[in-house]
Amino acid sequence: MHFDHAGIATDDARSLAELYADLFGLEIAHEEEFDGMRVVFLDCDNGYFELLEPLEDGTISRYLENDGPGIHHLALATDDIEAALETVREHGVELVDEEPRPGAWGHTVAFLHPRDTGGILIEFVEH
Amino acid sequence: MHFDHAGIATDDARSLAELYADLFGLEIAHEEEFDGMRVVFLDCDNGYFELLEPLEDGTISRYLENDGPGIHHLALATDDIEAALETVREHGVELVDEEPRPGAWGHTVAFLHPRDTGGILIEFVEH
Repeated sequence: MHFDHAGIATDDARSLAELYADLFGLEIAHEEEFDGMRVVFLDCDNGYFELLEPLEDGTISRYLENDGPGIHHLALATDDIEAALETVREHGVELVDEEPRPGAWGHTVAFLHPRDTGGILIEFVEH
Repeated sequence: MHFDHAGIATDDARSLAELYADLFGLEIAHEEEFDGMRVVFLDCDNGYFELLEPLEDGTISRYLENDGPGIHHLALATDDIEAALETVREHGVELVDEEPRPGAWGHTVAFLHPRDTGGILIEFVEH
């Protein structure tokens, strides 16, 4: 597995993307509306920042209400998400997504429960 | 610039490193005591997870008291940290570190103030 992206919760994904593009020389690689969010991917050359702006009530709007903007999750890329999930299941890790599901940018994703991963929300991504 | 690492605040860096090594097949690349913390780097192939465990009172111990374990910062690598700092200064970004300073693993680092980066703590790293 390798680093895929860091998911960032923000009130304004486009403005933050433009700011990071200016400050850090990153390219805006993709934008879409997905699952009640505006999602903007910034290309960090060897991975992405995924900027998540809620367009309706949901996980990210609640995160912002409770904690304000922040780094919401870390995603690891795998070539075989079913095998990756089986490995963590064997270690007794609770899954948020028992089965892989469609994610942003046409990827297949599954989240692990932070209770079993040291309090950090980890996502698996298969491109 | 490209992704360098995600900094993770934890109460037990070694246990979390071993868990992530088992769950995700990541290698433990480096461990040291630095600036009142135990710091363990997990190799994500194209970057690192930097696990930060406080050994004395400081930024990370206060973070854990206030928020619990979490993703503390994101670090971008640059070949010229002075130039990178000058660019963000020109954009009016407040710096936590006005000058680059020694960081973990012998790197040179500087943190930007999250007030001016959308609430996200960003670190520059020059290897």
